[in-house]
Amino acid sequence: MTVTDDYLAHNSDYAGAFNGPLPLPPSKHVAVVACMDARLDVYRVLGLNEGEAHVIRNAGGVATDDVIRSLAISQRLLGTREIILIHHTDCGMLTFTDDDFKRAIQDETGVKPPWSAEAFSDLEEDVRQSARRIENSPFVTQHVSLRGFVFDVANGKLLEVVL
Amino acid sequence: MTVTDDYLAHNSDYAGAFNGPLPLPPSKHVAVVACMDARLDVYRVLGLNEGEAHVIRNAGGVATDDVIRSLAISQRLLGTREIILIHHTDCGMLTFTDDDFKRAIQDETGVKPPWSAEAFSDLEEDVRQSARRIENSPFVTQHVSLRGFVFDVANGKLLEVVL
Repeated sequence: MTVTDDYLAHNSDYAGAFNGPLPLPPSKHVAVVACMDARLDVYRVLGLNEGEAHVIRNAGGVATDDVIRSLAISQRLLGTREIILIHHTDCGMLTFTDDDFKRAIQDETGVKPPWSAEAFSDLEEDVRQSARRIENSPFVTQHVSLRGFVFDVANGKLLEVVL
Repeated sequence: MTVTDDYLAHNSDYAGAFNGPLPLPPSKHVAVVACMDARLDVYRVLGLNEGEAHVIRNAGGVATDDVIRSLAISQRLLGTREIILIHHTDCGMLTFTDDDFKRAIQDETGVKPPWSAEAFSDLEEDVRQSARRIENSPFVTQHVSLRGFVFDVANGKLLEVVL
């Protein structure tokens, strides 16, 4: 038995009480970009209901090219007009450097990752960095609101970052 | 007033009932890779509790290089050992082609995106494609389980894809 099997049993309960389907385009026209951190249940943290907002997540909640791709699709094909960036305290990305991480992989596997690991040393600075990457992208241009936050894993609060 | 402001009001309620903090490493050692679709509330679909699993999401739930980066960090630094891939029915990625999407952006902005939009025409085939990218990666090697699913937005059920 894997944890995956346990989760599939939970899904049977979920499907049993399911009301659907909802429409494809997000009804609140919002896209959230957040860290993959296990403690960050984006729907609960923001009080999102199903069907309201796209939720894009990766290690760090960093605006990588893949996030730009996702936001471009979100805005251009599915009509989102607000972007919410969420990093969080006690983030794993604060605990290593790109150089060390890539060196460890190279030492073990013989292959150095061709990508940046996107580690950072300052949460608010990295929220601003992600905002600037979005502002500089020619592909993500249709939002009327772009705001960034740090989620505090100790108290559940979102603290806004001045971009 | 933006929707973002509404969500910040919800966050005050969330923080008021918050119990934390939880530890950084996912307690169930699971990483989920899912589409950004608004109807896919991963925590509810799988019955995840906060702190149990990393949740990585992008347009399509496709195993891009950024997902490989996130999974490498998830496994090597934070100890996850199972991967769950989730695509879903009625996905926006089924409704366009990379060529058309990139041409539309180029026509409007003068700049053609240097990335693939990762559109696909067959859900199960793309789940398998994502699995193969992970299996072929020298950087994501520490899982004992890799399984893929299609979430049915009409009934809430996860249907397993034979990889």
